[in-house]
Formats: sequence, C-alpha cells, structure tokens
Amino acid sequence: MAPVKLHYFKGRGRSQQSRWMLAASSIVFTNVCLSTREEFVALCKSGKLTYQQVPMLEDGECCISQSMAIVRHAARAGALYGTTADEAARVDEVLDGISDARGPIVSYPFMDAAEACGRLQQSIERFFPCFERAIERNGAPPFAVGASLTAADVLLAELVDSTIEALSATFAPSAADAALGPYPKLRALHSHVLGLPQIQAFRASTNWMPFPEGQVGRDYVQNVRTVLS
Amino acid sequence: MAPVKLHYFKGRGRSQQSRWMLAASSIVFTNVCLSTREEFVALCKSGKLTYQQVPMLEDGECCISQSMAIVRHAARAGALYGTTADEAARVDEVLDGISDARGPIVSYPFMDAAEACGRLQQSIERFFPCFERAIERNGAPPFAVGASLTAADVLLAELVDSTIEALSATFAPSAADAALGPYPKLRALHSHVLGLPQIQAFRASTNWMPFPEGQVGRDYVQNVRTVLS
Repeated sequence: MAPVKLHYFKGRGRSQQSRWMLAASSIVFTNVCLSTREEFVALCKSGKLTYQQVPMLEDGECCISQSMAIVRHAARAGALYGTTADEAARVDEVLDGISDARGPIVSYPFMDAAEACGRLQQSIERFFPCFERAIERNGAPPFAVGASLTAADVLLAELVDSTIEALSATFAPSAADAALGPYPKLRALHSHVLGLPQIQAFRASTNWMPFPEGQVGRDYVQNVRTVLS
Repeated sequence: MAPVKLHYFKGRGRSQQSRWMLAASSIVFTNVCLSTREEFVALCKSGKLTYQQVPMLEDGECCISQSMAIVRHAARAGALYGTTADEAARVDEVLDGISDARGPIVSYPFMDAAEACGRLQQSIERFFPCFERAIERNGAPPFAVGASLTAADVLLAELVDSTIEALSATFAPSAADAALGPYPKLRALHSHVLGLPQIQAFRASTNWMPFPEGQVGRDYVQNVRTVLS
C-alpha cells in the first residue's frame, strides 16, 4: 500500500488502534491532525467523510471512515487477518471483544482518571480472562489466532500497553503489575509484539503520541472541543 | 458451509443480523434457543463461549462468539464481502455505521416503545442520509458497495425492515412511510434484498421470528431474564 493519511484530532482517541495496525502492517502513514472547526467543516464538505466523523483513512482515492473499518483495511493490506476463514472469524471475535473492553481507555482523558481506571479494572476482570483462555485454546503461544502474527495480537498488545500506561499514570507501575499478574500469556504476547521491528520503529517515530495523562490529556480534550465546537 | 447452529435466546436481539446474513449466504442454520439458566451455565462450562455470552455460532468444531464476528463469518462464506480489498473496507464501513445506528432496534423490547422509537428517529436522521449518499456514491444501484450483493446491502435492508416494523407497530405504517420518504435509494435496496429467493425463503421459514412488539417482546424479555438470572 502506498503512503496513506490518517485524519483525526491531535491525540490518540479512536485512532490509536489504527496507528498500531498500520505500523504492524508496515504501511507508511502521516497523521493529519485537525486544529480548527474550519478545517473540520472543509473536510466534511469535501465528501470524504462517510459519516461526517473522524477518524478517516485517505488511501489514494479511497477514503475509509470508522475506526475498526480502518483497522481491518490495514490488517488485510498487511496479511494480518489469519490464513483461513476460521482464523479470520477468530480474529474478528478478538477484535470485537477488545472493542467491548476498551471504552475506559478512550474515555480516560474526558473523565476523572481514578474513575476511568475503576472502569478499566472492571473491563480487565471481565475480558482479560477470556483473552488469556483464547491464547491458551489457540495452542501456539504467544499468538491468539493461528501460528503467526494477526491483527488480534496487535490490538491485544495495544490494549495491554494502554492498560499499563493508564494504571501507571494514575496510580503507580506496581498497580499495572498487579493487574496483569494473572495473565502471563497476554503479557508474553504484549512483549512479543513490542519486540517487532516495525512496532519499535513506530514507537520511536513522531507518529507515536503520548498517553493522554495530565496536560497532554487536557490539551487533547481542548483540541477535540475546539474542532467540534 | 455445512449446516450450523446459532445459540441465543428465543428472539431477535443481537442475533437477527446474523440470521439475515446466514440466509443471504444460503447457509442452512438451526436456532438453538436457551430456555433456562441451567442450559446457559452448561453452555458456559462447555468452553464454547469465548466471552461467556451469546450469540454463538457453532460451525462444526469452530464456535464463534460476538454477533458481528458471526455476521462477517457468514458474509465470507457466502462471498458477500466485496470483490476487492477496497470493497471489503467499504463493506466494513457500512457495517460499523449500522452498528452505531441500530441500538434502538435492539433495546426496543426492553424500554418504552415510544421512547425507543424516538431514539430510532434520531438514528434515522443521523445515519440514513449517510447510507443514502453511500449508495449514490457507489454508482451501481441498488447496491451500496460494488456491482453486486454484499453484506452491506443485506444489513442495510435488515435495518430498514426493522425500522419499518418498529414504527408501524408503535405508531402506524404511515409513520414508517414518512420516515423513509427521503431515502428512495435505501428503499430500493430494501426492496431488492427482500426479493432475493433466499431471503424470501428465510422470511417464510420457522427461522423467522416476529418483531418484539407487545406480548412477543414481553416474552422475549422474560426469556432473557430467566436465562441470565
């Protein structure tokens, strides 16, 4: 895939999973960050936003809206959607579970940090045992689906990584250690994905945005409100 | 695909889109409807439920959870996911927009009917213009993506159909006519999908469950509460 543009606000939000997937698929991308309402209105009028919403991925003539549609588009381009129809279904099953689990990560900068982490802890208790069992059931550690990397691994690693960041920023790194203690398979998957050259390059690049804690989070919320005002 | 089993409650809920997709893909399926908490506990203990939730599609040895993962699995099996990667992304874009729009249909039997329809009207105003534009942009009516039937068409038809049922049951058929008046392309797509032989056969079969209005809705809510008690 030729270089693409990811249109969004200046922050992680609903684009962060897309960035991980683009990076994992070794697709070169540029973040186009909205700063003003006028820029957003112009983008709406361009006809490139199917739902008058961002994120939107501009891939040549094809402009794709909806964050998970972008994730799946990047996964197909990177051949990270499994090798059989059953594996593709398993990838979808994990991605949809992550969507159910990940709300507190997206809402973190918009609410009280301790309250967001309380909800995150509930998500961990509800979903992380399911993900841990899925890795065990798959029988090819560290992978969650099949015998090689898929989008399921990439977004599970992102979820673990964001969880560590949220709990470390709000409480202490020990809180993250304690929360992840019962899930050694998820931690091994997280380590594996973080060791991939393309993910290391992504995290060292200007496409890597910091976790929205403190002033970073307040600036991001202000950016969103200004653009949508 | 060999005949499959769809495990869920005795009603539409989060399985109805899967049923339309299975039917559109000409996959023979049986509804396995939970009646008691004991049946649900036994299913959980079987290890077949990735998230301890239904719906779950049992396709031989492969048991898929998450309603939209089931939809996508059926779409792949029926070759209803577009003919190129860009078309697959467009299908995902429509499916994810439908998920954003369809909440009031799922919650209808669990809340006041007029209030549910109020939310549904908001969804119509927000999303139906986007779907109408998507069909227009695609340039191959009645289809929303590409030049032949895809999962996007099937679930848009389901959304239009459920919308008509909800507004007709709660107010009158004229309310549905008025709501859909501004969207001739969506109505043409709906008519096309309803005319497909496999959809006609589905709607005439015992796999077709009635819209959850009145006593049907109350029985369904009681069934869900009994099973999850």
